[in-house]
Amino acid sequence: MKNTVGIFDSGLGGLTAAYEFENLFAGKKYIYFGDTARVPYGSKSKDTICRYALQDTGFLISKGASLIVAACGTVSANAIEALRQRFSVPVIGVVEPAAEKAARIAAAGGGRVLVLGTEATVKSGAYEKAISAIDSSLCVKSVPCPMFVPLVENGYTEGAAAELFVREYLSPYLSYGADAVILGCTHYPHLSGVIGAFLGGSVLVNSGREAAEAVSRLITADNAADGKAEFYVSDAPESFARLAGVFLKRDATEGVKCIDIESY
Amino acid sequence: MKNTVGIFDSGLGGLTAAYEFENLFAGKKYIYFGDTARVPYGSKSKDTICRYALQDTGFLISKGASLIVAACGTVSANAIEALRQRFSVPVIGVVEPAAEKAARIAAAGGGRVLVLGTEATVKSGAYEKAISAIDSSLCVKSVPCPMFVPLVENGYTEGAAAELFVREYLSPYLSYGADAVILGCTHYPHLSGVIGAFLGGSVLVNSGREAAEAVSRLITADNAADGKAEFYVSDAPESFARLAGVFLKRDATEGVKCIDIESY
Repeated sequence: MKNTVGIFDSGLGGLTAAYEFENLFAGKKYIYFGDTARVPYGSKSKDTICRYALQDTGFLISKGASLIVAACGTVSANAIEALRQRFSVPVIGVVEPAAEKAARIAAAGGGRVLVLGTEATVKSGAYEKAISAIDSSLCVKSVPCPMFVPLVENGYTEGAAAELFVREYLSPYLSYGADAVILGCTHYPHLSGVIGAFLGGSVLVNSGREAAEAVSRLITADNAADGKAEFYVSDAPESFARLAGVFLKRDATEGVKCIDIESY
Repeated sequence: MKNTVGIFDSGLGGLTAAYEFENLFAGKKYIYFGDTARVPYGSKSKDTICRYALQDTGFLISKGASLIVAACGTVSANAIEALRQRFSVPVIGVVEPAAEKAARIAAAGGGRVLVLGTEATVKSGAYEKAISAIDSSLCVKSVPCPMFVPLVENGYTEGAAAELFVREYLSPYLSYGADAVILGCTHYPHLSGVIGAFLGGSVLVNSGREAAEAVSRLITADNAADGKAEFYVSDAPESFARLAGVFLKRDATEGVKCIDIESY
């Protein structure tokens, strides 16, 4: 039986991983779930994040997913072990692949990594642990950027508002001189234009893209099931469909289904 | 048996009503529930908002509340009928009291009301209907301000960020010349300094305060139960306790309890 990849996020952010998956696995099926009834996850407690992530994953498996991508920085930083303990299918998060990429870049440069994430991600220390396990000589700093998700979910991906909050959160780190900056929440790549312009010489690591590449190291296109992407949300399918098209750079308005996630 | 008031909101916003209740009913008990696991409500669909509001109200009644204040603009605009159909206790929302106050001000002036609310509140048309039922000669315009809740929940109640979004949402209405501006979401009074400075001559109507005054027209201090306020949330009690103190202008760090709202 061929593999079907299931991708989930609290909302739209995981579409950065879905977009990369579509590029790497053209014509291959995947199932996407966006928990739009409970977005955002980044301000919630570890217990709640785990409970939501277990439901999200249970839903994708019930739809036939045989490989799960937790395309959410907050879930990857707080609930990946809980998912792997509960379910037997492979679970790929965004922390480990992005940590590996950033560690490689930093090791070849000045040894400095900056992690941008939600409050829950920064509080977890997950990126620090993952990078330290790869190369304990690297220096890692983490910055919570709680306004980035509302900015992206409301379409403020460039212009004065995005610039104001990028300056607010990142000014204290200009002199740090990071070699690699991990966009540790899958919403953040939508702000990469503004972040990249502000931070200048740093390489931005897109955690959604790195997760999709981690999938391509586990399965090949030959053993991935053919078919179209299926989209599910827990609320407001119309607005998801409208924004999904922008994020995937193609028409995605067809057949986004709404499900009751609390029953999984 | 004396009355116990139950107040709920998606998060912190309803504390604007709780603060006014404490002023009007000093030493009287109330029970507050903030649905911090599912905040924000304003971007969600009417069905989901109703389901959440029914659970929130069911919880407060299970704790002994005999009069409910839906201290959330989104719930008041979308779910108040559903609550009144399901439960026999009186349910006060923020829409009707604020609409009455704004209609009075506008009728004595140029006849113009501006409503600021979440996307779900504006979409519902609830304020237009309520004001039109009071005085159909009044002109009402509504503006969705989706970034105001994240700004308040993250502490940006003044300064450049608050000013930027106030300008963004309200510039098109400067020439409208509203007599009364309804702060139609209970988070928004925390931005009233910036909103008031930008809009100049308009009177700001605090929907949380009007709801608390509506309570005082239903019950007197004599038939309200004595006791301390009880606070419950569905997630992250520590951060709620910290911010609640700021909003209530007193120490509120003691005994905020976390409950599983999905079981109500």
